[in-house]
Amino acid sequence: MVHKKITLIGSSTESFDDAADDAISRAEDTLDNVKWAEVKEFGVEIANAEDREYQAEVEVAFKLQD
Amino acid sequence: MVHKKITLIGSSTESFDDAADDAISRAEDTLDNVKWAEVKEFGVEIANAEDREYQAEVEVAFKLQD
Amino acid sequence: MVHKKITLIGSSTESFDDAADDAISRAEDTLDNVKWAEVKEFGVEIANAEDREYQAEVEVAFKLQD
Amino acid sequence: MVHKKITLIGSSTESFDDAADDAISRAEDTLDNVKWAEVKEFGVEIANAEDREYQAEVEVAFKLQD
Amino acid sequence: MVHKKITLIGSSTESFDDAADDAISRAEDTLDNVKWAEVKEFGVEIANAEDREYQAEVEVAFKLQD
Amino acid sequence: MVHKKITLIGSSTESFDDAADDAISRAEDTLDNVKWAEVKEFGVEIANAEDREYQAEVEVAFKLQD
Amino acid sequence: MVHKKITLIGSSTESFDDAADDAISRAEDTLDNVKWAEVKEFGVEIANAEDREYQAEVEVAFKLQD
Amino acid sequence: MVHKKITLIGSSTESFDDAADDAISRAEDTLDNVKWAEVKEFGVEIANAEDREYQAEVEVAFKLQD
Amino acid sequence: MVHKKITLIGSSTESFDDAADDAISRAEDTLDNVKWAEVKEFGVEIANAEDREYQAEVEVAFKLQD
Amino acid sequence: MVHKKITLIGSSTESFDDAADDAISRAEDTLDNVKWAEVKEFGVEIANAEDREYQAEVEVAFKLQD
Amino acid sequence: MVHKKITLIGSSTESFDDAADDAISRAEDTLDNVKWAEVKEFGVEIANAEDREYQAEVEVAFKLQD
Amino acid sequence: MVHKKITLIGSSTESFDDAADDAISRAEDTLDNVKWAEVKEFGVEIANAEDREYQAEVEVAFKLQD
Repeated sequence: MVHKKITLIGSSTESFDDAADDAISRAEDTLDNVKWAEVKEFGVEIANAEDREYQAEVEVAFKLQD
Repeated sequence: MVHKKITLIGSSTESFDDAADDAISRAEDTLDNVKWAEVKEFGVEIANAEDREYQAEVEVAFKLQD
Repeated sequence: MVHKKITLIGSSTESFDDAADDAISRAEDTLDNVKWAEVKEFGVEIANAEDREYQAEVEVAFKLQD
Repeated sequence: MVHKKITLIGSSTESFDDAADDAISRAEDTLDNVKWAEVKEFGVEIANAEDREYQAEVEVAFKLQD
Repeated sequence: MVHKKITLIGSSTESFDDAADDAISRAEDTLDNVKWAEVKEFGVEIANAEDREYQAEVEVAFKLQD
Repeated sequence: MVHKKITLIGSSTESFDDAADDAISRAEDTLDNVKWAEVKEFGVEIANAEDREYQAEVEVAFKLQD
Repeated sequence: MVHKKITLIGSSTESFDDAADDAISRAEDTLDNVKWAEVKEFGVEIANAEDREYQAEVEVAFKLQD
Repeated sequence: MVHKKITLIGSSTESFDDAADDAISRAEDTLDNVKWAEVKEFGVEIANAEDREYQAEVEVAFKLQD
Repeated sequence: MVHKKITLIGSSTESFDDAADDAISRAEDTLDNVKWAEVKEFGVEIANAEDREYQAEVEVAFKLQD
Repeated sequence: MVHKKITLIGSSTESFDDAADDAISRAEDTLDNVKWAEVKEFGVEIANAEDREYQAEVEVAFKLQD
Repeated sequence: MVHKKITLIGSSTESFDDAADDAISRAEDTLDNVKWAEVKEFGVEIANAEDREYQAEVEVAFKLQD
Repeated sequence: MVHKKITLIGSSTESFDDAADDAISRAEDTLDNVKWAEVKEFGVEIANAEDREYQAEVEVAFKLQD
């Protein structure tokens, strides 16, 4: 049983929670067997976004098929 | 005056804030003189939980009695 | 083009998001060209505050004038 | 010449060595030109596994084709 | 649901695996609901031990009773 | 042979050395077989203390009874 | 809006700058919407290369299509 | 004798060296007694810049006047 | 309530404690509401100083006026 | 009493334990009063070795003669 | 001009300052052109020493002869 | 087969690349079988040098003779 981890950065104009959810949802949309996620960093984009954009860099782990 | 730090992992189906609160509340239920907490890591359990389960690993500091 | 980063610690009785917003808003009130922010640490003050006080240490980057 | 690194988590009921081998073998089964691996973390799953399950998170590097 | 993590250092004259097992077994002997362990550091004691003594510092997580 | 590490924060109005000693002495008063200590962080409390209060966060290791 | 980060190791017989460029160019050749890169480590391969080979491990971020 | 460190991010379309020089020159233009600099991170902005923009985050130390 | 942290490097020919005090005293001379300090690094300058010069890099936090 | 630490990288085609032993044995062959070792990193060389070559980077401490 | 850094661990029954001095003095006794030292870790040996033995692991830098 | 790593700090008035080369060349002048180097830190000396002096702290690995 081998898992793989990928690094995604989700974003939200609402909160850090939503930014993390954004990344996890994306992973679940395109991958099977997503198991857990670890937050690596939270940030806020201010200048290049209309509103403050909360960002969450997360490592998402999923089980590879045998 | 000596403080002790312990490491707790709280969880919530709602948010990272609630997960941290969960750990701090547990500490306050069983320890006197809880003073502060430091977040060590946020994670999300996906596979072993019905819904996404937000987790917060926190170090909680409390004052030891003299 | 040179940016400068300063370290601020915002606080809120509500959430980590609000604590980070508190620090960023302060930066925007007193500095021009605030560009982004990076969360360095989340903590909770328990003993010296009436309620739990959520704290966010953030590095805020702004563009220096030429 | 460009290499790429991916993060895999191998597992074994026997040892940390076997867990690392598990991840590396998986990489070699699906990728050409696997060159080296770096152990990022060792852990042991106790509750969700029948026996203790040794886990090795490794970064595996392979050479991309020109 | 709150977990607690404690830090134990196991030892073995045989291998790092056995040193980690030593710490985990100790935890299971005295605590209920031990869930997982994370290796923090491996070392070898040479001078104060008859043979080489392999050591594993591990964080062991267990579920607190509600 | 298993050791356990706990995290204590000692304090002193005199020096960092005394703050570390404060934490170690506390450990020795309440635990058998205290073996060594590692300094994790030095800090100084200024606002909430009458004088400057030197603080030493130390991990103290002690041998568990078989 | 979700970004993904991948880890590439570029190389050059000239300089660290060229090694980083090598990795970034590779990313741009095979991915759309490459946004930024972060240097994780610089190294020099001496024995297995004819000349000194400068290496740059970089994390490259690109925007995933909605 | 007390020094202060500030964090600047210089940029250049040419190289990491120039990006670091950019930050140091800015410090020397506005501060007396600049003593040394430490590179904290190198990055490359790709999407928001016309060409690749090399960036160097540096801590610059200068001596405060007595 | 927002705090700001600045990084100062104090020095002393006597001890690390005095070097940290040197930086904190400087902060208190020029800033209101200095609250706490965290030691980031201790060093010793040997060649460029007549005697050994103990140095303490500290982050000093102070409360900004509303 | 002063100790010195050196950094060695041992290798083995068998296991991480053997790779660490390889480095420690080398230290003991050429140095007196070797006291302890700390594992810094485990890796596996795959491409430049016939078989997988397990590698252990260890810091070895030995007591200097007075 | 090339400097070399070595890692020494000094000890003292008095203080962390003396432990660091112990390591630096040893370096100066056996090496020319010792320039500076950086403290890597402070610890206290309790069980294997008659009194508490303060230890300072320091990196000492010296200039190599051309 | 055992490798040893040493830490050298090269310098150059031209660039970080040259500073790293300076350290590696020194290693090759005095050691056999130098294999690779890892950059630990880049810095710039400003006050004690006529021009800006770029510095590269590198760990250099070489194969020990059997």
